[in-house]
Formats: sequence, C-alpha cells, structure tokens
Amino acid sequence: MNKLSNIKNTLLLGPGPSTVSPNVYNALSTNTIGHLDPRFIDIMDEIKKMLKVVFKTENDFCVPVSGTGSAAMESCFVNMIEPNDRVLIIQNGYFGLRMENMSQRLGADISLLKFDWGEPVDVDEVEEHLKDNVYDIIAIVHAETSTGVQNSVQQISRFIPDNTIFIVDAVTSLGTIDIQVDNWNIDAIYSCSQKGLSCPPGASPISFSEKALNKMKQRQKMVPNWYLDMTEIIKYWDGSQRVYHHTAPINMMYALYQSLYDVLEEGIDNVIQRHYNSHLLLENGLSELGLELLVKKDARLPSLNAVKIPEGLNDLDVRNKLLNEYHIEIGGGLGPFAGKVWRIGLMGHSARDENINKLLDAFRASL
Amino acid sequence: MNKLSNIKNTLLLGPGPSTVSPNVYNALSTNTIGHLDPRFIDIMDEIKKMLKVVFKTENDFCVPVSGTGSAAMESCFVNMIEPNDRVLIIQNGYFGLRMENMSQRLGADISLLKFDWGEPVDVDEVEEHLKDNVYDIIAIVHAETSTGVQNSVQQISRFIPDNTIFIVDAVTSLGTIDIQVDNWNIDAIYSCSQKGLSCPPGASPISFSEKALNKMKQRQKMVPNWYLDMTEIIKYWDGSQRVYHHTAPINMMYALYQSLYDVLEEGIDNVIQRHYNSHLLLENGLSELGLELLVKKDARLPSLNAVKIPEGLNDLDVRNKLLNEYHIEIGGGLGPFAGKVWRIGLMGHSARDENINKLLDAFRASL
Repeated sequence: MNKLSNIKNTLLLGPGPSTVSPNVYNALSTNTIGHLDPRFIDIMDEIKKMLKVVFKTENDFCVPVSGTGSAAMESCFVNMIEPNDRVLIIQNGYFGLRMENMSQRLGADISLLKFDWGEPVDVDEVEEHLKDNVYDIIAIVHAETSTGVQNSVQQISRFIPDNTIFIVDAVTSLGTIDIQVDNWNIDAIYSCSQKGLSCPPGASPISFSEKALNKMKQRQKMVPNWYLDMTEIIKYWDGSQRVYHHTAPINMMYALYQSLYDVLEEGIDNVIQRHYNSHLLLENGLSELGLELLVKKDARLPSLNAVKIPEGLNDLDVRNKLLNEYHIEIGGGLGPFAGKVWRIGLMGHSARDENINKLLDAFRASL
Repeated sequence: MNKLSNIKNTLLLGPGPSTVSPNVYNALSTNTIGHLDPRFIDIMDEIKKMLKVVFKTENDFCVPVSGTGSAAMESCFVNMIEPNDRVLIIQNGYFGLRMENMSQRLGADISLLKFDWGEPVDVDEVEEHLKDNVYDIIAIVHAETSTGVQNSVQQISRFIPDNTIFIVDAVTSLGTIDIQVDNWNIDAIYSCSQKGLSCPPGASPISFSEKALNKMKQRQKMVPNWYLDMTEIIKYWDGSQRVYHHTAPINMMYALYQSLYDVLEEGIDNVIQRHYNSHLLLENGLSELGLELLVKKDARLPSLNAVKIPEGLNDLDVRNKLLNEYHIEIGGGLGPFAGKVWRIGLMGHSARDENINKLLDAFRASL
C-alpha cells in the first residue's frame, strides 16, 4: 500500500514546518528542468532579488543554500570561521548550543556569553563584555525557536566592532518579525524556507555583506566543506558564466520563488504585522483559557509561543489528541523545557485568525 | 509577472535531472506535515526498506541525505576520512577530481591512480598497485557522468583488503545499471534522486556497511561537518527514540518515497534492463545518423552516452535549438570534452523508446 495516502492535511502550528499554501504546492510540482537551463537561471536571479527585499539589504550575495535551515546555518559558520578564530557565541537556547557545536568542529577559539533559557539576552551585559574583549566573529540567535524568546539584534548590533563579523540566526525571524540586515550591520545571516516563508523545507536563504565576502576571500585554508563552499557556489549564482557546482534542488527553488513572490505581493511589512496580530489573538485566547506564556511580554516572539503546560496535564497526550483528532500539530519543549511547555508556532500561511481560532477551540475542548 | 509560467515541459535527456513522472509530481505536492509526525516516520522507514532493495544490501544504514547528490558524496567522505588517513582515489573523470577536492579539505593523505578521461579504469593496474600499497580508504566512481564510462566496481572490489573502506560513487548508476552493495563489499555508497530514480534533486541516498559504521564510531575527532554528521543523523532515522537533528526536506522525501515505490513496482532488475534497451535503441539510431560515441563499446554506460560532435557543428547552437525548438535538453561536455561531446542521459522515466525516438527525430531534422 502506498503510505502517502496516510498523510492527512494537517494544520501546522508547531515550531516549523508551517502550513504550505496552495500556490506554493503548485509551484513545487512545476515541471523539473535543468539546473543550467536559462529559464532556471532566470528563477535564480528573481529569488536573489526577492531575498534582498525580505532581508532589507543591498547585499548582492543573497542565495538559498541547497538544504534545510541547518545547512544554511553551517554555511555561515564554515565559510566565516578559520581555525583559532576568536568566536563569541551569545547563547540563551538550543540553537545557541548548536552554534557552539558547529564552531567547535571548525577549530574556533570559542567564548560563550550565556543567559538563561526563556530570558532575552541582556543587552547591557553584552555591551560591558565587549568593552574588554575582542572577537573575530560574534554570533547570536535572533528568534530562539526553542523558547520563543526574541533577542534584540538591533540594539546589540551597535556594540559590534567594525572589524568583527556579526552572524545572525534568522531561522524563525525571517518573514515573521522585522529584520534589517543593512541597518543592523549584519554580516552573515541565515534562515530557512519552512517557517516565515511557508514553503516546504529544503532551500534556505543566506546573505553575506561585503565584509563577510572579504573575510572569505582572505581565508588561508580552504573551507573544510565542499558542498557549502560559497567561494565556489557564488560562481553558479552570479556573473555571466554560470559555473556548475552542484545540482540545485530545482523544484524546491520553484517553491521558494513562489513563497517569496507571495510575501512580496502581500508586502513584507504587512506580513510581519499579520504575524504580530495573530500573536495577539493567540495570547488573548490562551489567557482566557487560563494558560500562561513562558516568556515575559516584551521579549515574546510572535512566531513562537511557548505555553506552560498546566499541572496535571500530560504533554504528549494533549499533543497526540490535537494531532489525531483535530489534525493540528503543535510542538513540545526542548532541553530543560521538555514536557514543561508547548511550542505554538504562528508562521507564514499558518498565521491567520481562522487557524488560531481552530487551535483555541481544540484546546477548549481538550484541556 | 510570475516567471514560473515560463517553465515549459522539457524532455530531460541530459546528465540529470531526468524527467519526473506524474506520480512523483503528485507525491511532491502531498501536504507537508511535521518531521516528527508518526506518519512521516513511517514514510522514512519505508524509504530505508526500499533503499535496501535498490542497493541490494542488508545494511541497516540506508538513508537519504537532506541535499543533492554532492551532499551525499560529501557525507561519505566527511564521515569516513580522518586527518592523515591514507586515501586512494581511482580517477578517470570529473567526479574523481571532486573526490580529490573533498578529501583535500579533510586533511587526507591522498594518492591518485589516474586513467585517461573516456577510458575505463584498468582493473589489472589496480590489482598491481594494491599489491604494494596500503590504504585506509579507496574510492572510485562507478559511472562517470562526465564521460559516460562505466568502471568495473565488481572486479575491483576483489582487490580491496578487509581493513580498507571502499567508497563508491553511484550517482549515475543507482537504478540504471546493476549495483550489488553486499556482494561487492562496498562500505560507503552514495547516489542522488534526480537520475536513475527520476525524482527531483534534493534527497540523496547513501548506505554504510557495518565496517563503515565501526570506522565512524572509532573516530578520534568529531566530523568537521554538523549537517552531515551521520553519528547524529542515525539517531533520527533509527531506533525507537527519533531524536531531532535537523528538519528533513519533507516533500522531497515524499517524492523519493514515490520514485522508489515505482522502481520497486517495476522491479529493480526490469528497470535496469529498460535502461539497457534504451541505450541500444539510442546507439543504433545515432549510428544510423553517422554519430559516434566517445567510449568503447564494452565500457559504455547505458545511462550516459557521450556523443562526439561532428566537425563543423557548434555545440551550443545545436543544444539551444533542441531546447528551444524541440523542448529537449541534452548536456555539453565537461573538462577536456567541453565543446567536443554531447552527453545524452537515459535515466529513470526519460529512458523510454518514445523519448529516444523524439531525440533522434530532432537530431535528424537539426544536424
């Protein structure tokens, strides 16, 4: 029996993937053509242009990596870090740990500035720390998917010295909260397709500043990663000669094209506003149900809402009921919050009133 | 204007991607669900089972890598190679060069056994060489997509010592010519989705033997690549606890599932026979047109036919005419064969009589 027939249409309100729109499904199954076909090159060029808009940057280097968000993440670290580079990771959640793990593998000289999970990064402490310490690279997660905390990249960006590379994880923030790559002096930023952009996972945007491209050019050693070596990949995405590097995931690129097209049609700031409005509706509904959010009000991510699981309720029982009876997916907690919070994602096409009301109704009936 | 409307249905007879079947397009746009949803885990389990059949192996470790073929390639090299490992690359084409490039980045102690492009690897010379030289890893390309040469992995496998890891590139061979992972003592093998399996690019099968898994376990240093670290990824693909590593490319996995399902329904050996029959039809038709193949008869790949471009014809003019007037893609030459050969792929759903006749008709009208 073909098991794909078991797949039910599911409202995705977890930490990602988010619900994909009919437009994007159509785009995904557009006829596959060659990765050097001029019509595909044309799609690539349009994707680059649209990424500049959503990232709010004039960076020419805006491309999707041929993998899911973690591949985009690694592409930033592996191209920027050389062995013994002094790397500061500002860490307050699971994805900050991943930054550390990736940097370790690359032989970086790592320092950590740690904050409690569920709390935002203390901007003053970062400022103080950077008065006495010098780094080649500073990395921070904008939107911690593990806890639903928003870190103030905008404020922290003011303390990053000119000769330091600033890496920002925008996996859960792109298309859900404001990001201004140029105004915030971000040098390397990465995201994914399956959250704010509402596309299936598999093609993940990054952007590098001139400063980042220069750091790449001045490397003493080759990037220890062929697949993600942007020095080579740039020759396929840019210039008149499109030099084959690896076969791009053609249909995923179609889907990413369409999802960006739809975001631009709605307007990036309107999309962000819609996410905020959805969050308010959810916040209000949860409060009426007596459910509490983990994160304090001014650090809450609209796109990822960590809800404390009330005493006496079993995490998995509730999530399974939602999934099997209501066809709604929400996420469980990670790390210290496993079994203690649910993570409700409001991302992309999922962030609509009707979906939030569906979830609230299901909660009302289940809790 | 939405540029996806420019994409025409194209008969893909190049070096890959191959033409995708309607079944697989349908699978691709199946509703996206979560990467920890039990129904998705079920699809993953089925993919693993079907990969065992097409690879002809009892290896438990058969998984698709979350990227295109080169990511699968790198996953084999990066998990197997530790710095200073003695690596022999048997090289007779572009993808042998890529093996060298990837191994360099990993600090391997590389030896090369080189053969001319367009010629198969000389089995006797390999045997002689291995009498006097010891390696930790030996790597070879089964089907050189750059030239259309088939290397006799079966014969060479007899000379690989017990304590050496044998890596085989099956990017263009899986699903097009016979591969017997267990009988040929292959330890790490990689392929892609967009050639013999006729699926869009973006989810790429690998398989590791027990010996390969042991080499991985005995590593002194972490794999310098987080995204492709199979020590971690195995925990998501195997066992009762499915530990989140990275978000899988869900819809690509649906498509891979369907393409494997279709291959198994036809029967892997029937699929291979169909590729061979297609090749004979093409070979015969080209000969009638006075066109010559690059590779000598007994080393020809059914799935990749390198055709010498006749004197006086311009490579790009002909390929552009085929693409724009006949909606047929064929490939150009690589390296020393750029401008000198066309590469005609007969892969997956493309390898059918009607398609070959279309190409021959177009050639007849254009040359």
